[in-house]
Amino acid sequence: MLNKNFNQNIIGIIGGKGSMGQFFAKLFKSVGSKVLISDLGTKLSNQQLIEKSDVVIFSVPLHLSTKIILENLKFLRKDQLVMDFTSLKQEQVTAMMKSKAEVMGMHPLFGPPIENVKGQVILYCPERTKQEKKFVNFMEKFGFTMKEISPQKHDHLMAIIQVLIHFKAIVLGKALEKLGVDIKESLAISSPIYKMELNMIGRIFAQDPKLYGAIEIMNPETQKVLKILEESFDLYKEIVLKKDLVKFEKEFVKTSKHMGKYCQQALQNTAKIFKVL
Amino acid sequence: MLNKNFNQNIIGIIGGKGSMGQFFAKLFKSVGSKVLISDLGTKLSNQQLIEKSDVVIFSVPLHLSTKIILENLKFLRKDQLVMDFTSLKQEQVTAMMKSKAEVMGMHPLFGPPIENVKGQVILYCPERTKQEKKFVNFMEKFGFTMKEISPQKHDHLMAIIQVLIHFKAIVLGKALEKLGVDIKESLAISSPIYKMELNMIGRIFAQDPKLYGAIEIMNPETQKVLKILEESFDLYKEIVLKKDLVKFEKEFVKTSKHMGKYCQQALQNTAKIFKVL
Repeated sequence: MLNKNFNQNIIGIIGGKGSMGQFFAKLFKSVGSKVLISDLGTKLSNQQLIEKSDVVIFSVPLHLSTKIILENLKFLRKDQLVMDFTSLKQEQVTAMMKSKAEVMGMHPLFGPPIENVKGQVILYCPERTKQEKKFVNFMEKFGFTMKEISPQKHDHLMAIIQVLIHFKAIVLGKALEKLGVDIKESLAISSPIYKMELNMIGRIFAQDPKLYGAIEIMNPETQKVLKILEESFDLYKEIVLKKDLVKFEKEFVKTSKHMGKYCQQALQNTAKIFKVL
Repeated sequence: MLNKNFNQNIIGIIGGKGSMGQFFAKLFKSVGSKVLISDLGTKLSNQQLIEKSDVVIFSVPLHLSTKIILENLKFLRKDQLVMDFTSLKQEQVTAMMKSKAEVMGMHPLFGPPIENVKGQVILYCPERTKQEKKFVNFMEKFGFTMKEISPQKHDHLMAIIQVLIHFKAIVLGKALEKLGVDIKESLAISSPIYKMELNMIGRIFAQDPKLYGAIEIMNPETQKVLKILEESFDLYKEIVLKKDLVKFEKEFVKTSKHMGKYCQQALQNTAKIFKVL
């Protein structure tokens, strides 16, 4: 039975051996919550975990998330709160809504390793729940910044924040590989901007290909975003190969105006970042 | 007449009212060097500046650099050292070699505003000079890291470090504009990687369109680099639209292997960067 004091609930994490699952298990335990985990190779099955838990969290690979949620729907009860930690929300929340439980989708906008939870953003979609305020309060006490969002708006924004930005890094990584760039040599003779970029690319290629693949493949707006990215590429490709500096400047200034005052702020922010590179 | 103690030379900066020219004028003056500048609207003409200087530096817009150098060749004497600060080296050094002066191309790999010169890299191409060691020593005393490179190798590396990386930022900026992304709204609900990316894009769009245009347009290897970037884009576009997670993983792992141990280092570096975002 769900307790309004969240640290008195038994929190079950399906996929609790993954890096995200482990991270949150440790965090919840640190305030006295009882945490159960199930995963490949645990004694506890997903069914057993659900039977014993008040809060059930699916912390599972994105590409398998809907499948795993649907398989476990039948074990969920009305007196439970079910959540997920995956990077997309529409399919996952819709799947959880087929259960009898209270439903709140979640997306922690960071992945371990992080050094400090303070200010880390977690997006949440309270789809069918009376526990929203209590749960948000429980999470805010750790230092997280909790932001409510609809599953639709969430996936729309992630088409930019994740699909576009990760795609760029993955494509640049492939270009560096195809060009045979010696990473070490290039970093020895490099600008701060290049160092920043290599750090971003390297960070992604240190992580799970399936996660990054699923983020690209599963977002409902991927096709639209890639189309616009390609149009932007083609625009500048033509300008540059035609050596049309006048048109380059015109297009550049349009974007600069769109970004507005943020550009000056970015100049200051990057000066700070350069110091720690 | 060139003095081996560089702070005793008169240093003339053509384009001395630009941000780079101003930056170096101030720096050279800080150790007692006499600095002359010429620019649009100065009393001193380029010819007069060259006549009065021991060291002449072309700190002029990249897209005009070869033209300005060629116009002033005839004023240069054998007892002078001529240099440039532009972002490409083959054309510029070749042009300076048509004079009678000693020639050393330079490329400071940073642009004002920077907060500290310590560790900032300056690439240099000593094409025809006896002053190399003395000059390098003079610059190193400020804290710069001086690296010798041939004009050919320089432009080859800049095809990656500048052409590729700036092109990415400029294209992403255009995509954000075309998608109508509200920069402020997107930053409020964003991952650290997205914040880093926006800072990099914003930094570029805060700066001179002509410089970024000229870097793209004038590098002799632009066409090659854009071709490979496009191939990499097309590869992942097909994978993602076909929802082929297996092939995504295969290609991702190839790049990850190419980047090697650097990926883990990038994971640590970015954790540091995230703290200052």
